[in-house]
Amino acid sequence: MISDELKNLIQLLSKLPGLGPRSGKRVALHLLQKRTTILPALTDALQVVNQTIKNCTICGNLDSQDPCALCSDSRRDFSLICVVESVADLWALERTASYKGHYHILGGILSALDGVGPDDLNFSSLFKRCQKGNVTEIILALNATVEGQTTSHYLSERLKEIGIQQISSLARGVPIGGELDYLDEGTLSAALMSRREVG
Amino acid sequence: MISDELKNLIQLLSKLPGLGPRSGKRVALHLLQKRTTILPALTDALQVVNQTIKNCTICGNLDSQDPCALCSDSRRDFSLICVVESVADLWALERTASYKGHYHILGGILSALDGVGPDDLNFSSLFKRCQKGNVTEIILALNATVEGQTTSHYLSERLKEIGIQQISSLARGVPIGGELDYLDEGTLSAALMSRREVG
Repeated sequence: MISDELKNLIQLLSKLPGLGPRSGKRVALHLLQKRTTILPALTDALQVVNQTIKNCTICGNLDSQDPCALCSDSRRDFSLICVVESVADLWALERTASYKGHYHILGGILSALDGVGPDDLNFSSLFKRCQKGNVTEIILALNATVEGQTTSHYLSERLKEIGIQQISSLARGVPIGGELDYLDEGTLSAALMSRREVG
Repeated sequence: MISDELKNLIQLLSKLPGLGPRSGKRVALHLLQKRTTILPALTDALQVVNQTIKNCTICGNLDSQDPCALCSDSRRDFSLICVVESVADLWALERTASYKGHYHILGGILSALDGVGPDDLNFSSLFKRCQKGNVTEIILALNATVEGQTTSHYLSERLKEIGIQQISSLARGVPIGGELDYLDEGTLSAALMSRREVG
């Protein structure tokens, strides 16, 4: 009943994150309804992005220039590298507008279950950057999950070997607006242990 | 921080039904991660669909052939036309595999709020099909919403004028697996009024 070309599009759309078979159909029909406006615009945007957006050879960020805008910004602090899992995490940190150093994107996280080892991630390029000698601090801004913490631990060991003096990670504690009653025990005990003297 | 080409893609993705700014970003990053597989495949699929899929000139269905596969299927009953709002509704009815007549897609629904009048929908092509004289029954399979019922009422009046003898609508009642306690009063009273004698 649905023609093969349309079925193929629906199948591809259904596999995108956050979409399923039902929403895939909905998106395909929406695109066909707007076939003079959104459909060609989206096709063009996909082509342009595929042609122009590259991975930065220094940090792994996605940008139309290489090195990326962040890496070629001379106002940023070159001695500080913040290690993140993905470009999405970089964007999240940039939204805070409170960090002015550089980034390094691992492109994933160590995971024995998924078979991701140190060679599958951008570790060697990070070590090479550190060995150039200008780096004074590495911030490990990885997710507070088991895999994130494993990767943090592995990286901090290796970075110490290379001779990086200062290795830090994001603070654990009560999020802004968080209610103690609804927080898990792990976060609460971490916040208790890292308590700060009231100014 | 995000390059213009990527921003444009995210903006277009964010406007698709079921997606927002956050999931738009997620989809864009996912596509760039799979830039050798899913990204070109999706671009191709969109182009192919835009070039091959047409609206059937008889019923308004979307297909790669015109008249569509349903309209050119000689095994289907030509004397029966089921009027639906959209292609998605046609697909839903076809999934039941219990209807063997033809369809007519209105492409929308009468709505004073959205400024949709009879001239904006595929009404005249439906009346033309009916006037050819082979049609014995019209099934109005429109949503059980206020707009759907308004459209049903308008269509049934006009179809009677044209001379269609039999005009029906979908039965109202308790859905399969439905629990009476959770059903709204409207559905329940409709089910009560249309009660059927037990076998």
